Amino acid sequence: MLHAVIMAGGSGTRFWPVSRRARPKQFLSPFGGDPLVRTTADRIAPLVPRERIWIVTAAATGQLAREIFPDVPPSNILVEPAGRDTAACAGYAAAMIHLTDPDAVCLVLPADHVIPDAEALCSALAAGAEHVAEAGGLLTFGIRPLRPETGYGYLKTGPLVTVRDGHEIHLLERFVEKPDTPAAERYVASGGYLWNSGIFAWRAQTLLNEISRQLPLLAEGLATIQEATGTPRAAQVLEDVYPTLPKISVDYGIMEGARQAWTVPVGFAWSDVGSWAALPEVVAADAAGNVTRGRAALLDAEGNIVVSEGPVIAAAGVSGLIIVATSDAVLVIPTTEHQRVKEIVAHLGEAGWDDVL
Amino acid sequence: MLHAVIMAGGSGTRFWPVSRRARPKQFLSPFGGDPLVRTTADRIAPLVPRERIWIVTAAATGQLAREIFPDVPPSNILVEPAGRDTAACAGYAAAMIHLTDPDAVCLVLPADHVIPDAEALCSALAAGAEHVAEAGGLLTFGIRPLRPETGYGYLKTGPLVTVRDGHEIHLLERFVEKPDTPAAERYVASGGYLWNSGIFAWRAQTLLNEISRQLPLLAEGLATIQEATGTPRAAQVLEDVYPTLPKISVDYGIMEGARQAWTVPVGFAWSDVGSWAALPEVVAADAAGNVTRGRAALLDAEGNIVVSEGPVIAAAGVSGLIIVATSDAVLVIPTTEHQRVKEIVAHLGEAGWDDVL
Repeated sequence: MLHAVIMAGGSGTRFWPVSRRARPKQFLSPFGGDPLVRTTADRIAPLVPRERIWIVTAAATGQLAREIFPDVPPSNILVEPAGRDTAACAGYAAAMIHLTDPDAVCLVLPADHVIPDAEALCSALAAGAEHVAEAGGLLTFGIRPLRPETGYGYLKTGPLVTVRDGHEIHLLERFVEKPDTPAAERYVASGGYLWNSGIFAWRAQTLLNEISRQLPLLAEGLATIQEATGTPRAAQVLEDVYPTLPKISVDYGIMEGARQAWTVPVGFAWSDVGSWAALPEVVAADAAGNVTRGRAALLDAEGNIVVSEGPVIAAAGVSGLIIVATSDAVLVIPTTEHQRVKEIVAHLGEAGWDDVL
Repeated sequence: MLHAVIMAGGSGTRFWPVSRRARPKQFLSPFGGDPLVRTTADRIAPLVPRERIWIVTAAATGQLAREIFPDVPPSNILVEPAGRDTAACAGYAAAMIHLTDPDAVCLVLPADHVIPDAEALCSALAAGAEHVAEAGGLLTFGIRPLRPETGYGYLKTGPLVTVRDGHEIHLLERFVEKPDTPAAERYVASGGYLWNSGIFAWRAQTLLNEISRQLPLLAEGLATIQEATGTPRAAQVLEDVYPTLPKISVDYGIMEGARQAWTVPVGFAWSDVGSWAALPEVVAADAAGNVTRGRAALLDAEGNIVVSEGPVIAAAGVSGLIIVATSDAVLVIPTTEHQRVKEIVAHLGEAGWDDVL
C-alpha cells in the first residue's frame, strides 16, 4: 500500500514572530489559508487517504497535529522526543509503517512547501512510487531549476534509466550543497542539475535495509523502538532512545551511499518558502513591488514584505524591508538579511524574552 | 495673583501610534515617567499652586485631564468644543480667569515641552511675570538657539529694556516662521534671534484689551462666553460660539501687533519634542546611536529610534529608522521623514481604520 510521511518537525524560527516554539511555520498559514501541513496532506489526497498519512512532529506540536488532523489515526502521529534530522525521521516512520504493512511504499514530504499544481505533483509522485515498488532503491524528486538560486541544494542527475507515465527516471549521481552564484549559474546552464526538493519515495523495507547497511547505530535504535511499540514501555523507550540516534540527513546519510538511488525531474512550480523573503513567490506583489498580508498602509514604499497578524502596519519612505508584526512582537530587517531571523530569535532567547519565542 | 494656563489641546498625531485621538501626546509619557501635562504643572509648582492651574483641552480629553489633575478645581479645566489655535485658547483662559481675578497675571505654557531644569524655568517665568505685572504688555520667552534648527520658529529680539533678577527683558521685534537652513544659520550667527518657545506671560486684562483692539470678532465671542459662564446656558453658548472664533495664533494674531511686546532670552535646555525624531533630545542613545524605549533587540542597527508600548521589537541591519509599536499598530519610517506621521494618520483615516486612530 502507498503511505505518505509528512515531516513536520521543524522549529520554524525563520518565520518569527508569526511562528513560535509551540506553533512553527508548518502548523500556521503564514500566507493565508489552511495550515501548511494540512495543505500538504490535502494535495496528495487523491493518492493517499488520511488513514495512511503519517505525521512526524516535535513533542511541542503533537497535540496541535492531532487537532489539525482529526481524520488521521492518532497512532499515525509520530512524536519525536528530539529533532535528529531527516534520516532518523524517515527511518522512524518507515519502522512504524513496516510493523503493520511490510510491503509499504512511502512517499516522504516536507510539511511546509508550496506546490500550487497538486495534479502535477501527484502524477510525479505516483510514477516515482510505482518505480520504487517495482525496482527497489531510493528515489528523490528534483525540481527543474528556474534560476541560479543559491538558497537551495542541488541534485546532479545521472543517466536516464526509464520513462514512466511520462516521467523520466534518472540515476541520481550526487547531492550538492547550496552553491555560490557562479556554481549555481553553471548548474542551471548545464541542464544536468535539479533543485533538491526533499521529497522522496521508497519501500519501507528498502529504506530500513539501507539504514542497516549504512547507519547501523540508527538501525539499532530504530529496532529497539520498533520492538517496544505496542508495549507499556513504548513511550519510555522512545524517550530514551530517540535523542541518541545519529543526527544526519537522508541525503548524505542514506541516499548518497545507497545501492540504487534515482531521481525524477519535475517541472511544477515549487517553493520551500524558507523565509519571509520567499513570500513574493507565493503572494502577488502590488504595483510598487510590495507584498502585504493583513492591514498595511504603505506610502512611497517599494519592494517591502509586510505581514501583520493583527496590528495595523504603517510605513512610509522605506524600501526592501521585511516588516512582520503580531500583537506582542515586531520584526524589521532588510529583505537581503532574511537569514538573520534565526539569529534574532537566538538573541531574544539570550535576553530571556521567552514569552515571545 | 499668578495663574498658569497649560495649553493641552493638541491632537498629537505626530506621535502615532502611541498617541491617539482620545489620548494625545500631552496626556501620555512617550519617554517614560508621568504624562507630559502633569510634568508641566509640577515643574512650575513652586510658582503656581494647583488651584491656580488652568488646563485648556479638547472635548475628547476633558475627562482624562480631570483624572490626571484631581487636585485642580474642575472649573479650571476648560474644554474647547473645537480647536481654534492659540489666540482663542489663551483668550478663553484669560476671560475665565479674569471673571474671578481681574488683576490676574497669567503664565501660558504648552503642555508637551521638555525642560529638565525646572528651577531655571521658574526663575525666568517669575521675572517675566513680575515685568508684565508692573509694565503691562505681552511677553514671550525665547530660547537661546543651540543650532541652526529649521524645525522651530524664531523670535527677533529688539533693544534691551531692563534686567530683572538677572533676566534681560528685550523689546520683541517680530516673529519669524520656520526658516530654511541658510536663514537659520544667519539667525544663529547674528545672536539676535531666539527659538520661539510658545511660553508667554501677561496680565489677563492686557491680553483681553489687545484682543479687543486687534481681533474684535474674538473679543465679541469671548465676551458672549464670559457672560454665559455660571448660567444654565453656559455649556450651550460655549458649544455654539467657540467653533466660530477666529482661528489664529497668539504670535501673529496678537503679539505682532501688540502695543508692548517683550521677550526674555533664556538659556535652559528645552525641546518641544515635536515628533519621534526629537526623542534623542530627551533619551540617551546607546553606543550605536540607537534610542530605545521598551523591549527592543537591535543587531547591527545604528541611529534608530525604537519605541515599544508592549511588543518586543526586533530589528537587524537597519539604520536611521523610527520604529514604534503598540499592541495594535506599528509605524516604520526613516528618521528623516518624521514629519510624515501626520500624513500616515490621515491615510489610515481614509482607509477607515478608525480603531487605531
